[in-house]
Amino acid sequence: MTIGVCYFPEHWPDERWETDVRQMAEAGLSYVRMGEFAWGRIEPEHGEFDFAWLDEAIGLVGDHGMEAVLCTPTATPPKWLVDEHPDIRQADPDGTPREWGSRRFTCFNSPTYREETERIVRKVTERYADNPHVAGWQADNEYGCHDTVRCYCEDCAAAFREWLEAKYEEVEALNEAWGNTFWSQQYPSFEAVDPPGLTPAEHHPSRLLDYHRFASDSVAEYNRLHADLIREANDDWFVTHNFMGDFGALDAHSLADDLDFLGWDSYPTGFVQDRRPGQATTDELRAGDPDEVAMNHDLYRGAKRAPFWVLEQQPGDVNWPPHAPQPAEGAMRLWAHQAVAHGADEVLYFRWRRCREGQEQYHAGLRKQDGSPDRGYDDAAAAADELFDLEPVDAPVALLHDYESLWATENQPHSPHWHYWSHLRAYYDALRARGVQVDVVSPTSDLDDYAAAVAPTLYLVGDDLAAHLEAYVADGGHLLFGARTGEKDPHNQLHESLAPGPLADLAGVRVDQHESLPDGMPTRLRYDGETHDYRTWASWLDAEGATAVGEYTAGVAEGRTAVTRTDRGRGSVTYCGCWPTDRLADGLVTDLLGAANVAHTSRFPEGVRVAERNGYAWVTNFTSEELSLSAPTDAAFVVGGETVGAFDVAVVETPAATVSLD
Amino acid sequence: MTIGVCYFPEHWPDERWETDVRQMAEAGLSYVRMGEFAWGRIEPEHGEFDFAWLDEAIGLVGDHGMEAVLCTPTATPPKWLVDEHPDIRQADPDGTPREWGSRRFTCFNSPTYREETERIVRKVTERYADNPHVAGWQADNEYGCHDTVRCYCEDCAAAFREWLEAKYEEVEALNEAWGNTFWSQQYPSFEAVDPPGLTPAEHHPSRLLDYHRFASDSVAEYNRLHADLIREANDDWFVTHNFMGDFGALDAHSLADDLDFLGWDSYPTGFVQDRRPGQATTDELRAGDPDEVAMNHDLYRGAKRAPFWVLEQQPGDVNWPPHAPQPAEGAMRLWAHQAVAHGADEVLYFRWRRCREGQEQYHAGLRKQDGSPDRGYDDAAAAADELFDLEPVDAPVALLHDYESLWATENQPHSPHWHYWSHLRAYYDALRARGVQVDVVSPTSDLDDYAAAVAPTLYLVGDDLAAHLEAYVADGGHLLFGARTGEKDPHNQLHESLAPGPLADLAGVRVDQHESLPDGMPTRLRYDGETHDYRTWASWLDAEGATAVGEYTAGVAEGRTAVTRTDRGRGSVTYCGCWPTDRLADGLVTDLLGAANVAHTSRFPEGVRVAERNGYAWVTNFTSEELSLSAPTDAAFVVGGETVGAFDVAVVETPAATVSLD
Amino acid sequence: MTIGVCYFPEHWPDERWETDVRQMAEAGLSYVRMGEFAWGRIEPEHGEFDFAWLDEAIGLVGDHGMEAVLCTPTATPPKWLVDEHPDIRQADPDGTPREWGSRRFTCFNSPTYREETERIVRKVTERYADNPHVAGWQADNEYGCHDTVRCYCEDCAAAFREWLEAKYEEVEALNEAWGNTFWSQQYPSFEAVDPPGLTPAEHHPSRLLDYHRFASDSVAEYNRLHADLIREANDDWFVTHNFMGDFGALDAHSLADDLDFLGWDSYPTGFVQDRRPGQATTDELRAGDPDEVAMNHDLYRGAKRAPFWVLEQQPGDVNWPPHAPQPAEGAMRLWAHQAVAHGADEVLYFRWRRCREGQEQYHAGLRKQDGSPDRGYDDAAAAADELFDLEPVDAPVALLHDYESLWATENQPHSPHWHYWSHLRAYYDALRARGVQVDVVSPTSDLDDYAAAVAPTLYLVGDDLAAHLEAYVADGGHLLFGARTGEKDPHNQLHESLAPGPLADLAGVRVDQHESLPDGMPTRLRYDGETHDYRTWASWLDAEGATAVGEYTAGVAEGRTAVTRTDRGRGSVTYCGCWPTDRLADGLVTDLLGAANVAHTSRFPEGVRVAERNGYAWVTNFTSEELSLSAPTDAAFVVGGETVGAFDVAVVETPAATVSLD
Ligand SMILES: [Mg+2]
Ligand SMILES: [Mg+2]
Ligand SMILES: [Mg+2]
Ligand SMILES: [Zn+2]
Ligand SMILES: [Zn+2]
Ligand SMILES: [Zn+2]
Repeated sequence: MTIGVCYFPEHWPDERWETDVRQMAEAGLSYVRMGEFAWGRIEPEHGEFDFAWLDEAIGLVGDHGMEAVLCTPTATPPKWLVDEHPDIRQADPDGTPREWGSRRFTCFNSPTYREETERIVRKVTERYADNPHVAGWQADNEYGCHDTVRCYCEDCAAAFREWLEAKYEEVEALNEAWGNTFWSQQYPSFEAVDPPGLTPAEHHPSRLLDYHRFASDSVAEYNRLHADLIREANDDWFVTHNFMGDFGALDAHSLADDLDFLGWDSYPTGFVQDRRPGQATTDELRAGDPDEVAMNHDLYRGAKRAPFWVLEQQPGDVNWPPHAPQPAEGAMRLWAHQAVAHGADEVLYFRWRRCREGQEQYHAGLRKQDGSPDRGYDDAAAAADELFDLEPVDAPVALLHDYESLWATENQPHSPHWHYWSHLRAYYDALRARGVQVDVVSPTSDLDDYAAAVAPTLYLVGDDLAAHLEAYVADGGHLLFGARTGEKDPHNQLHESLAPGPLADLAGVRVDQHESLPDGMPTRLRYDGETHDYRTWASWLDAEGATAVGEYTAGVAEGRTAVTRTDRGRGSVTYCGCWPTDRLADGLVTDLLGAANVAHTSRFPEGVRVAERNGYAWVTNFTSEELSLSAPTDAAFVVGGETVGAFDVAVVETPAATVSLD
Repeated sequence: MTIGVCYFPEHWPDERWETDVRQMAEAGLSYVRMGEFAWGRIEPEHGEFDFAWLDEAIGLVGDHGMEAVLCTPTATPPKWLVDEHPDIRQADPDGTPREWGSRRFTCFNSPTYREETERIVRKVTERYADNPHVAGWQADNEYGCHDTVRCYCEDCAAAFREWLEAKYEEVEALNEAWGNTFWSQQYPSFEAVDPPGLTPAEHHPSRLLDYHRFASDSVAEYNRLHADLIREANDDWFVTHNFMGDFGALDAHSLADDLDFLGWDSYPTGFVQDRRPGQATTDELRAGDPDEVAMNHDLYRGAKRAPFWVLEQQPGDVNWPPHAPQPAEGAMRLWAHQAVAHGADEVLYFRWRRCREGQEQYHAGLRKQDGSPDRGYDDAAAAADELFDLEPVDAPVALLHDYESLWATENQPHSPHWHYWSHLRAYYDALRARGVQVDVVSPTSDLDDYAAAVAPTLYLVGDDLAAHLEAYVADGGHLLFGARTGEKDPHNQLHESLAPGPLADLAGVRVDQHESLPDGMPTRLRYDGETHDYRTWASWLDAEGATAVGEYTAGVAEGRTAVTRTDRGRGSVTYCGCWPTDRLADGLVTDLLGAANVAHTSRFPEGVRVAERNGYAWVTNFTSEELSLSAPTDAAFVVGGETVGAFDVAVVETPAATVSLD
Repeated sequence: MTIGVCYFPEHWPDERWETDVRQMAEAGLSYVRMGEFAWGRIEPEHGEFDFAWLDEAIGLVGDHGMEAVLCTPTATPPKWLVDEHPDIRQADPDGTPREWGSRRFTCFNSPTYREETERIVRKVTERYADNPHVAGWQADNEYGCHDTVRCYCEDCAAAFREWLEAKYEEVEALNEAWGNTFWSQQYPSFEAVDPPGLTPAEHHPSRLLDYHRFASDSVAEYNRLHADLIREANDDWFVTHNFMGDFGALDAHSLADDLDFLGWDSYPTGFVQDRRPGQATTDELRAGDPDEVAMNHDLYRGAKRAPFWVLEQQPGDVNWPPHAPQPAEGAMRLWAHQAVAHGADEVLYFRWRRCREGQEQYHAGLRKQDGSPDRGYDDAAAAADELFDLEPVDAPVALLHDYESLWATENQPHSPHWHYWSHLRAYYDALRARGVQVDVVSPTSDLDDYAAAVAPTLYLVGDDLAAHLEAYVADGGHLLFGARTGEKDPHNQLHESLAPGPLADLAGVRVDQHESLPDGMPTRLRYDGETHDYRTWASWLDAEGATAVGEYTAGVAEGRTAVTRTDRGRGSVTYCGCWPTDRLADGLVTDLLGAANVAHTSRFPEGVRVAERNGYAWVTNFTSEELSLSAPTDAAFVVGGETVGAFDVAVVETPAATVSLD
């Protein structure tokens, strides 16, 4: 578990590099990521390459005992390339090209751009195939950032038609699968299918879903091109990619096989402003929301059930959220500890120095633009000093996350307040408040190792998935389903039977009605003898075999069943029809953990979390209040102690479930 | 007065149709509307027709003692058609085509689309010309839904030029009528006139008004094409169309002559979220706002002064508003009763079954997608059982509604809070709270039968209209004018004289000033000895012959006249310069009803309304509170009784004015 | 100091003109502005000119002892011209042309449009070269209104490339200056540079800044074409232009040399709704915010340090803001007095009569559309009667305003609440509340005459500007810098050293950190023994030679320096790192005035201001409360007296600093 940094030697005079790299080594850093936007520097004119600068930079990194992580520079093609090939640009739904002048404007399906990608990736990887200081590669950069997974250009239209033909073989099968009788939407041929453009009313949901699948697949295919070329040059190298937080358009699971490990870019105080509905608290604006960050750690760890890297860690103030409050004292260290507790093997701060030029001048680095230390520098050095080697995280609970259900529900949210990630977080936060490690995994993955699993919105369910989950429960698994689970089939049609369709037998329940409610309408239910509030969504259940354990107590729903539970051999299935607020989520989750015999803590307050890895419990304090811990008397503190200050951390050698707050 | 339903056999396996149709008959239904989006099913390839399925469905309907209402399927042309003729697509103001993939994207002025319309309509109408089970036709579907009355394509540009030439003959006349000296907007020829595209500043209001007139006329012409072809095939058939609620872009009056009766699509809990500014109450989210729904009943009844049909009645939860709360218990029955009380002869629920596929999966039917009864089913059957035959509504008061004044004021609202429909509703709601039936009619229609008339915003007034209203008052009519009446001439220019221009003599008033005020500025006036509040708009009046009966008491307007009244022989004219809040509107309206000797009730609370038809009083309770009625002791209750539960209805054989609440 | 009016004879029958012009003379008016939108009337067809009407109108003006101000009619080219030359249209960033049909849609860089401009301007100026009644010309109208300074057409692309080549000579110099290594944004040639189009992420800030400079320069060049042609025809004429209020896209300083004096269009009750974030008070909705209006007076006066004209003065209610409240009684007179107190030599009301046709029907004039007097008429006549000749304003303090800093900060606001003009106003309002006259001037202008200078956001600072300010302070000047001063170099890169870069030595300070904060986060500091609040922005300072005189007392900033001060010989420099709220701004400003020995008043309340010109103090009351003045006993009141009513004015012959409120 070490610390690294992202570096752009091309932004600085070469006489400075030696100093920069030496200071990195002095801070205890291990890896230096470079080259991700340097195509224009590497190939200033078509076919004229300049590698001397990068050779030198890598050499310096090696000379100082560190290793380089290189990036394919395909996120920022140079101007000469787009002027030669304007067809590589993406297009908006109305056909307007996305122009050069920022980044990520190129189409993943453009044959020209794929050729050019192959050309440059081959060139850079061959260059460093034998360089002993290069540890591995990041393919491209943040696929899909700035809303670019989905493109509507002619190349995409052609590729979409091929993708559909490969999937459905006959256009009649497509018409049947989508349900194109509705509004006369039958296609006479695959050739007649277009990407979803600008229409007076909303699109067919099945067409949209397949377009979202296709677009995500296109990125996966484009990534595979990189991975293959990198391994072709040197198959000892690792290949990774830096995904983003709370990012839905690209199915990270689908890239997992092509990567050695996943990486992601963690910006805690940006996410609370940019990714979540609602106003962040002052503490969150200073250090982020620990659960929001951790769920992404657990997602990118869960995708391969293996340690991941934070390929970009927020180093201080950043430029892209609406506001730029300075992080709390120590927040940059806190984030590194939290990442490692959740399974990171490496944390690279983005970036070494604040850049004087271009779009990210208002983005801090570990050092300021004049080379002096910035606020994150000491934090990074402290983390590098404190962290130590660890086994992977071993999580007892799975959270089933399905990108296709995200796409389908966000296309038909049926409420302006439906927000897939926030709904997932209702359950995730409750689990984390109880100190439980959670693998965020695909519902189709192997669940054998999990005592319990939560599926907040398993919206699209076919027979295979139903059978998979039945087997899990039959084998003793404890399963909690949340709102909208089983509403649709994999083609985004309603099931012939009522929801949850093929899960009805397993859950012993049918959905009689659903409704979505604006804030301000009464939303109450009774669960376990107590009254709770819910929000946004309510399905009214008919227990058919299960036991009603929650009942709506307000509105038209009054008297209808809200939550059911049923035992299935050693396993059990709970179905919650509504979006629970926090106390109800805690009740649902603790009952699940109890049934599954999963050790957990008393309920931690917002902002304070405990996470276990390799026998150590990390207590992270994302609040401005000092707190006081109880741990077993013989447990050794390896970082900090019983008193954990504002935005501080303690690491103690003991199971998480043995820790509590005074 | 019977009940029917909309059915899409093409969405279901044909072996199911018999069951479905039998269940309709069992529910007591009379009419089944079909075919409105079935072009793709009827003509899967160009020139290859398949009618067998529809023949069978109609046969089943007839076999079960019901009648079919068919629809021309022109709202959803198949993909092969738009691929053959991309020119049939509408265009946005910047020229972007509106794409296939939802519905209603075709241009009403496209010669190609008109030819294709003629071809398909001729085909379907000829097919069923002799079918004894087909009662009549709905032309197309919801003309202009999804903001498609106005198109900016080349075909529309050409048609607009012809329309202008037919209207003005010489371009100099157009330049004069519009007032094109302003900002050098003179046209050298009709050929030089374009649809209003994207300009840096706002458009010329006279140009916009004529474009809105032209666009509405284009739809009327397109409708006439349908009506003529339908009658050509079988002139015993009725022809109707399903208009929409609070829909302004299409002048429903202009289609009245071409239709045998008007129909419309009533979605009470959708309208309160989608059509009105401001947050709906919980009761409104559960059952809608009775006045909002009723004003549309009265508008589509008023357009022909004849019974209308509800061609689509909300059956339960719906997909298109922001939120989808479940309607109150009984709401679906309540809506049918209210429709009939306001003059409907038939109420068709939309639709028989929730559809598994396409854009409207989140739209309920009377039955669920698995065929089992949904919440509206019993309500529909109850309504079918309770309703009986009735004479048309006989309304004593007219509300003068003018689409052109709507277009003109909404193009120059002069306040972000100006909302034409809401301003009309200030007066309409006050009349309805007094139990008075109101015909919503064109100001140019024959007013002889009305004891009183209210013109909330008769904005565009020429000499002919002024003479028409003078004659009405001379004949004993009592007339109430509201804010902005008489501000402009029919070309959307200010009058040479001050407002209300040609109405000044009749009303005995001149508008000295007007102002629009944001919320939070003091807005008070004194009327009839009491202080009232107004909102958004204030014209300051100079009584010139009339008597000042209302005076502003706050702001710069303090001391200026707000309301005037003048007797004209047996008639009278009141002019109210501001947008009244509810208590002031009640005062204005009761004074009007008193002068005109119109029987009315004491003031009913929000949500409770009484409406008279054919000697019966319908008391509809759109609230969650039970209420207690007083009716003459000898009056017979034919539905319900003196206690009216939440969302319930009572029908009692007595004049509405004899009913009160305890 | 006289009063005039804008007149559009082309909107009225010619038989009316004599009456209109006679009534103007009766009101005591001196100047009549005409012709600004009359191209279509002057040249109804290409090459066919009609000047008879304008000849006659000018003759009538002269006959009644007044003078005409004519305007080149280029803001509204006729339809025949754009149909002949569609290439004269501007384009949006996505290439969509800006259409004819309102105004100002033509490209300043279009060679065709420049030719046509030359043709029509030559024609109209030659026509009146010898007319004794024409005093001078206004070039075009409100350059850039409706967001049209910046255009993205092909002509602009070509012109931008030339502009860049002229500036940088070699493309390598451009790449270096902008910093195009970042995200591979190097250009291979000037030919490869485009206007900034639609990109997935934000544009390079240096590219944007140069595009904004180029666009502003293009307007200046277009204005020069007018000025040269006007002077060529008759070099006794004055040439002016009517700029707009709080308008940032066009650098007014850059047109100053080409104009004899600057003019602007003042709409006080429009600005408070349209230009400022936040809700206006009732008094402001009735009379505007005096400081908002006055800062524009002082800007257009400061641009040439010479009297200016109000070329359009709001005459009553106006059409373009969201709401149109009637102005307070007397507001139209108050505005004229305020304008003169701030250095206007002439105030022309816009317009003589409300127009019956076109886009501005809801815009009052001094007379109504029927010719009768409107609310502003008596106010205008009163002002004409009361005003008298005066020397120019002599301001002791300069406010340094820099359009390029405005562009650069608004492109990288780093906070949704950053608003350049509002931040300037924090300091300007404080100075005005102390009765001090302020020249708003370019930072590069000669500052010798100013005892003190305030630079609220001198964002872009190079060595030359730093030297200029050093010389000012060395010479005894007292300088106050505000937030974000010195953050960037003139190419919009960060300095190599920390901010304020080349100003660091002068100010004795370095910026260690900055942050932007949403409302609701604690923002407190201590200055001069008192606790104050600040907003939006905080830079944390390290005093390096200066003395820390203000310290943050909340948040992560707690204990860091907020304000520094340093003496430099007879001069001094203060640096304030945050956006001060009003009491703090008063503290900063009074300390500055004290150091600089500038006479000032006690602090006037919001809405009441005193301004001195030529030995007279104007006390303007923009509130609905009467107030009571104290002036030296021997001071003569030339307008009003010691009691100043709501929205009234007093003029007393005494220095402003001798006046106070009781
Ligand atoms: Mg939380
Ligand atoms: Mg109401
Ligand atoms: Mg102020
Ligand atoms: Zn593409
Ligand atoms: Zn069209
Ligand atoms: Zn241009």
